[in-house]
Amino acid sequence: MFIKSLTTAAFLLSSGVVLADPLPSWNAGQSKSAVIDFVNAVTDPASDSYVTPADRIAVFDNDGTLWAEQPVYFQIAFAVDQVAKRAEADPAILTSDALKAAAEGDVEGILASGKEGLLEVLATAHAGMSVSEFKQNVADWLDEARHPTTGRRYDEMIYQPMLELLSYLRDEGFATYIVSGGGIDFIRVFSEDAYGIDVNQVVGSSLVSEYVVGDAGPALMKMPDLFFNDDKAGKPVAINHHIGKRPILAGGNSDGDFEMLEWTTSGEGPGLALYVHHTDAEREWAYDREGHIGVLNRGLDEGPDRGWVFADMATDWSTIFPATVE
Amino acid sequence: MFIKSLTTAAFLLSSGVVLADPLPSWNAGQSKSAVIDFVNAVTDPASDSYVTPADRIAVFDNDGTLWAEQPVYFQIAFAVDQVAKRAEADPAILTSDALKAAAEGDVEGILASGKEGLLEVLATAHAGMSVSEFKQNVADWLDEARHPTTGRRYDEMIYQPMLELLSYLRDEGFATYIVSGGGIDFIRVFSEDAYGIDVNQVVGSSLVSEYVVGDAGPALMKMPDLFFNDDKAGKPVAINHHIGKRPILAGGNSDGDFEMLEWTTSGEGPGLALYVHHTDAEREWAYDREGHIGVLNRGLDEGPDRGWVFADMATDWSTIFPATVE
Ligand SMILES: [Ca+2]
Ligand SMILES: [Ca+2]
Repeated sequence: MFIKSLTTAAFLLSSGVVLADPLPSWNAGQSKSAVIDFVNAVTDPASDSYVTPADRIAVFDNDGTLWAEQPVYFQIAFAVDQVAKRAEADPAILTSDALKAAAEGDVEGILASGKEGLLEVLATAHAGMSVSEFKQNVADWLDEARHPTTGRRYDEMIYQPMLELLSYLRDEGFATYIVSGGGIDFIRVFSEDAYGIDVNQVVGSSLVSEYVVGDAGPALMKMPDLFFNDDKAGKPVAINHHIGKRPILAGGNSDGDFEMLEWTTSGEGPGLALYVHHTDAEREWAYDREGHIGVLNRGLDEGPDRGWVFADMATDWSTIFPATVE
Repeated sequence: MFIKSLTTAAFLLSSGVVLADPLPSWNAGQSKSAVIDFVNAVTDPASDSYVTPADRIAVFDNDGTLWAEQPVYFQIAFAVDQVAKRAEADPAILTSDALKAAAEGDVEGILASGKEGLLEVLATAHAGMSVSEFKQNVADWLDEARHPTTGRRYDEMIYQPMLELLSYLRDEGFATYIVSGGGIDFIRVFSEDAYGIDVNQVVGSSLVSEYVVGDAGPALMKMPDLFFNDDKAGKPVAINHHIGKRPILAGGNSDGDFEMLEWTTSGEGPGLALYVHHTDAEREWAYDREGHIGVLNRGLDEGPDRGWVFADMATDWSTIFPATVE
């Protein structure tokens, strides 16, 4: 045990220099070694796998990969809370069963109304306002809302081991991007503070927006129609659109990330695919093949043969969430 | 004259330190002073107009702003040459008057077929191949093609004063983006070498692309349908989508840039709008209100009252194109 802690905490190089462990919340094991070996290979000018800094692009899914996604995607929690808040001021907005369910915080009730009901709730919270009004709403919600089971701020439901990975990659010359099925305007509100990721390195789904010049000057208005669904085969498309290069490292947690991981590992040079596997029912949640959130089937079936790395949360991560400030 | 050269070439600071002129190809005058005064104000921590480096976003149109666009948009010249090249191998592809005109290099003939004919020529050159095949075609074309009147490579038809402005802004902590009506995949082929602008800082129009897994692995295929038209009111929308912040400096040359310049100068903080005005029929071209390329009407009508800066190519620029390597 003492020896294990020592090797996890520090690496003794042949020169005799002891470097701090770049991933202290990752237990020693295959997953941690695979990540560190990959980073060492692509950053070593003497390696066949060397990649110039400009091409060290790393992309990460957000829900279930960088932060939690249970018991419901946090952006849905936001939408539900927004509907409830507006209904307090004006109950007349509750024109459907889905909206009424949302106002009561009844997510099951919303889902019972089908996809249309969910889209109605999302549209109420996300459209009909300017991008800056929307972002202010998200910021206010993050300040007020607390996760139902942990009592944490939602932007503190982030994974400490992944924060360490992001920092480590940036220290090694990588650019770190979020490529999420979640909303681009939503994630940009907290990406910098939560992950150290600049807003221009956030890629996500989006609604149509329109440039409208009113009495108070121009504004970008969010419309109810979907502009781009950044999921599944949409992720490589969005990566090309926003980044313009194929990544060499990709992290995800569900089949919605399969194509992104496939694209990342299909280049001529080196590529690493990492799946975060939710296996820890005590410290987080345990789920993969079943349910409606973060479903992982094809990834589990094909990932191992493709040489993809699986971070088993229960065994590979010594810590899940960062220490809170409060 | 001697004194003018001296003041243009170097600034004598009160400390006695002589700094090189950051914009040597700009003649002394209102436009140059307006740009330098703005940059000094937003980078001086003691100034009311100070802007933190993370918010120093500058955006530039490409055609007619960073490189020339006469006698025809260079991307159309590319498309015409591509059709001609493919028709040599397979004349059967010339199934319409527009394509036949393209194969003969007859741009007037293409335009005579209307918008539909032009789109057909563009689709032939831009769709039905992977993004990487397309980029290789553009790179090959840039190596072979020469501008009809100057004999230069097309990527050497760039404006020396604007190259200096891009470098100056980056030296002063700005991020410099291209926001062009031209194709994003097209511009990314030369943005780094021509302008020092990384591919992830190129925003442009685009076709729909699809992720397709074939025998040779996955590829991003370019489809004939338009995904986004990055022109006029589309420019602020694309800026929000790709960059996520409002710029504080924008440069353009036509009414297609009006909304981008308006958006840039409508923020709470400082904002500078710069129009490149094509006034030099001898060294470049002289055009604004008339024609079908780079039409500038509203900008000329409203820009001066809005405090926008006009770079008069004939009087403000001592050099137009950089010295060629050949
Ligand atoms: Ca996910
Ligand atoms: Ca232009």
